[in-house]
Amino acid sequence: MSGGVEWALHCCVALTVARSPASAARLAEMHDVSASYLAKQLQSLARAGLVHSVQGHAGGYELTRDPALITVLDVVEAVDGARPAFTCTEVRQRGPLAAAPERCLSPCSIHAAMTAADEAWRAALRGVSIADLTRNVTVKTGPDTLRRIADWLG
Amino acid sequence: MSGGVEWALHCCVALTVARSPASAARLAEMHDVSASYLAKQLQSLARAGLVHSVQGHAGGYELTRDPALITVLDVVEAVDGARPAFTCTEVRQRGPLAAAPERCLSPCSIHAAMTAADEAWRAALRGVSIADLTRNVTVKTGPDTLRRIADWLG
Ligand code: FES
Ligand code: FES
Repeated sequence: MSGGVEWALHCCVALTVARSPASAARLAEMHDVSASYLAKQLQSLARAGLVHSVQGHAGGYELTRDPALITVLDVVEAVDGARPAFTCTEVRQRGPLAAAPERCLSPCSIHAAMTAADEAWRAALRGVSIADLTRNVTVKTGPDTLRRIADWLG
Repeated sequence: MSGGVEWALHCCVALTVARSPASAARLAEMHDVSASYLAKQLQSLARAGLVHSVQGHAGGYELTRDPALITVLDVVEAVDGARPAFTCTEVRQRGPLAAAPERCLSPCSIHAAMTAADEAWRAALRGVSIADLTRNVTVKTGPDTLRRIADWLG
């Protein structure tokens, strides 16, 4: 998984409390990371329809919908793509004992086990929304954390 | 995930039916892959204690235990290591709004969500044994597949 996922998720949590669109530069400064690097993550989120950029003087990014309707999986897939970590190269169809193509219409048992695990991973990430993450920040580090973020982003 | 996982799992299934230790060269030939590449995967399995190599004329690799007691997760971790795909770099402790270290004794809500998903993935892979995979090969492609592998490996 790329390091961008951690930044993108932290940005989404920050955007849930921003009172107006937040610029990539301001979010980058807050997180002490390069603005161009963070802009890249925000553009991935925009391409996936999770944030949109508001143009103009007070422009910046905002979430496109209720944070309860954006899942952690949405953000992970926006940044890293939706391709499973395991790629089957049809090992079973190679060599002198190669399985006949007509016996390979469904995934082999190894591929099926990897796909099931991938789906369990995705289901777990789909079960947590950005709103859940924000709520947990409040529980964990107190409401002032989010108020400080809101004040900083303006 | 590395491509070695697919090869290593296919080798483990083949070893469940081998009548004697199988050499890396023979397994490689069967799968039409380079012997040195496959030897690398088998050495990872050996290092993790899943297979051991029998020396001598009829030497080769064999499983160290009942395939019902080797899980898919064991093989994945042997080849790719046990490190979670997500790495938390403590983004929350950076920048002007950095959380105080004493408030960061437990993982942030984002890190916790990623860890829970990683555990769901591992639990799924832990729930399938090499014996399960072999059984499913029989169900899927007929018992002759495994018999042909057994005959080939000798
Ligand atoms: S052929 Fe790809 S996992 Fe079995
Ligand atoms: S500080 Fe690493 S995920 Fe939040």
